[in-house]
Amino acid sequence: MPATHVDRRERLRALLRDRELDAALVSNLVNIRYLTGFTGSNAALLVLADGPGPDPGVFCTDGRYDLQADEEVPELERLLDRTSAPALAARAGRYRIRALGYESHHVTVDGLAALTRAAASDAAGPVRMASLEGAVERLRLVKDHEEIEDLRRACAIADQALAELVAAGGIRAGRTEREVGRDLDNRMLDLGAGAPSFATIVATGPNSAIPHHRPADRELATGDLVKLDFGAEYRGYHSDMTRVFVLGPPAGWQREIHELVRAAQLAGREALTVGADVVEVDRAARQVIEKAGYGPQFSHGLGHGVGLEVHEAPTLSSLGAGTLAELTPVTVEPGVYLPGRGGVRIEDTLVVRADGPELLTLTGKDLVAL
Amino acid sequence: MPATHVDRRERLRALLRDRELDAALVSNLVNIRYLTGFTGSNAALLVLADGPGPDPGVFCTDGRYDLQADEEVPELERLLDRTSAPALAARAGRYRIRALGYESHHVTVDGLAALTRAAASDAAGPVRMASLEGAVERLRLVKDHEEIEDLRRACAIADQALAELVAAGGIRAGRTEREVGRDLDNRMLDLGAGAPSFATIVATGPNSAIPHHRPADRELATGDLVKLDFGAEYRGYHSDMTRVFVLGPPAGWQREIHELVRAAQLAGREALTVGADVVEVDRAARQVIEKAGYGPQFSHGLGHGVGLEVHEAPTLSSLGAGTLAELTPVTVEPGVYLPGRGGVRIEDTLVVRADGPELLTLTGKDLVAL
Repeated sequence: MPATHVDRRERLRALLRDRELDAALVSNLVNIRYLTGFTGSNAALLVLADGPGPDPGVFCTDGRYDLQADEEVPELERLLDRTSAPALAARAGRYRIRALGYESHHVTVDGLAALTRAAASDAAGPVRMASLEGAVERLRLVKDHEEIEDLRRACAIADQALAELVAAGGIRAGRTEREVGRDLDNRMLDLGAGAPSFATIVATGPNSAIPHHRPADRELATGDLVKLDFGAEYRGYHSDMTRVFVLGPPAGWQREIHELVRAAQLAGREALTVGADVVEVDRAARQVIEKAGYGPQFSHGLGHGVGLEVHEAPTLSSLGAGTLAELTPVTVEPGVYLPGRGGVRIEDTLVVRADGPELLTLTGKDLVAL
Repeated sequence: MPATHVDRRERLRALLRDRELDAALVSNLVNIRYLTGFTGSNAALLVLADGPGPDPGVFCTDGRYDLQADEEVPELERLLDRTSAPALAARAGRYRIRALGYESHHVTVDGLAALTRAAASDAAGPVRMASLEGAVERLRLVKDHEEIEDLRRACAIADQALAELVAAGGIRAGRTEREVGRDLDNRMLDLGAGAPSFATIVATGPNSAIPHHRPADRELATGDLVKLDFGAEYRGYHSDMTRVFVLGPPAGWQREIHELVRAAQLAGREALTVGADVVEVDRAARQVIEKAGYGPQFSHGLGHGVGLEVHEAPTLSSLGAGTLAELTPVTVEPGVYLPGRGGVRIEDTLVVRADGPELLTLTGKDLVAL
């Protein structure tokens, strides 16, 4: 949808003018995808605040992606150069750029040195390099209708894949974690996912106490908690969901921590209001767990934004900052982990809305015994 | 193998002393894996040039990875802190660090600001931040026996998966690119790969002229070139191989460019000698293609190092610099791409050795008609 991308670039131009920058040099590939639709692995984008034509800018990639750029970014002037970002910085003189915004949270220290050298090589006068201060990420915080529809589809694929896995008896004693993970991944791909959102987590029995366990050769056994943390990528957008099952009748402690995490997760979801402080959202869920005496066993933040990246702004944790905006998708995922025994995490992907958060991952949250 | 990691850290310490640095703050996760064996997604490592004990240093990760670090990095002092690198920089005073090496090719501009602030917060005097100038990557260039054995296994998995795919009739008219790619990926996983090395490329018919085409819904048809670029990750090491097939009897132009690329690839492989200039290795293959008049249709570099990353140093291209060291694994992958018609790339993973390059990807390079 070039119209969408043109519009996004125009919103970036408004930010550039506010900050008295002549251009933005965007090198983060995710931001480039957001601003152009390009999906290759090497590119840079120069957006001019003002210039010739209605959408002044130059897109740079290398020869491997020339044909792909014909399809994905037909509307922008194209430069083919393997070095991409410095090649665009070297046009500072041609476009009379005196103040050039760059992505200081993405460009490395060496990278900035290369950009600075390149900009100076062509400039009539000195070029001031200024941080864009996450300008594109800020545009990305609030999703448009099409983005939310893609995310909704990504969540629906994950929901359906899990339902099919359960219905097919795919979570059963004797299978390895790896087998369960591959089964789930293949079902997501069959349902139209471009890829799993990230390396699917299947953590069973004592492994479920490891928050980010990778599937291994452990065989599922009766009495296990089975924690699945996974998602589907669809047209660049990522779903993220965690559910826990138990093989056979749940033990008392398994019921107890599952109930607790479920209550905390509900409290976190209910705190997702427009304008809510992200630290307070984390607190809302965390205090439920702390009151039950399991505070130290909830060893990570509550959640994060999702979109073109599976982890993106905002961060819902005591280390986060800022407030929630309308139409921002986030995850809510408290957990309690008992080393050597097992752990529970329950995670949804939701969209912050004025009339309350909209749940995109629709799988039920009962502790289902299989 | 902690002994291996202890030895690698000791080699890094020798580099620190040469450069009069008191410590290295390593934040690149691949380098951390190389130096510690840690495979999680958040960590930093402080290696002290001198200090208490035989292996002075501190490993930092967050609570999600505490149990995993018990298994992977039991021998180092551990700090649990979500911010990782700044948390370690904040110990500059405690360890009397006056000159702190950091990874200037990996640390972002904002990241360096955070490290500098953290180091100053605890220091008795000023702390000089100095680039490590890719010190760990330089250690990684030359592989040890165990690394090469892992890479050999990664290549063998890819070879076998492709042989099985062909034997099972998996490359046939009517299947989509996506189906062929998933079939190949699943075979690699069945054979013990941790994951595909990267998103497998299946580019057929006119799509084969796109060097980095992603598998789509195009159905394979008689007369197609079928280009497969893929690899297996095994214990962190990545194989990389490209082969081309043809569906039905090859056309004259298909034979012609396949023969040409094959000759260029052989010339490139033969140029892989200890001490060879990487630009000259690229030239050796490129001039074969240029002499045949297809220079502009070979639109990328000749190859790259492989190891813990699928693309790592050295770069074999006109933009590369340096010479080849013994026991450095690289790819050699020339290609010729004819837009709208099709393209051929042939790629192997090899190890530079004193007695000539050792081929790790053993699949034949004839143009096989299926």
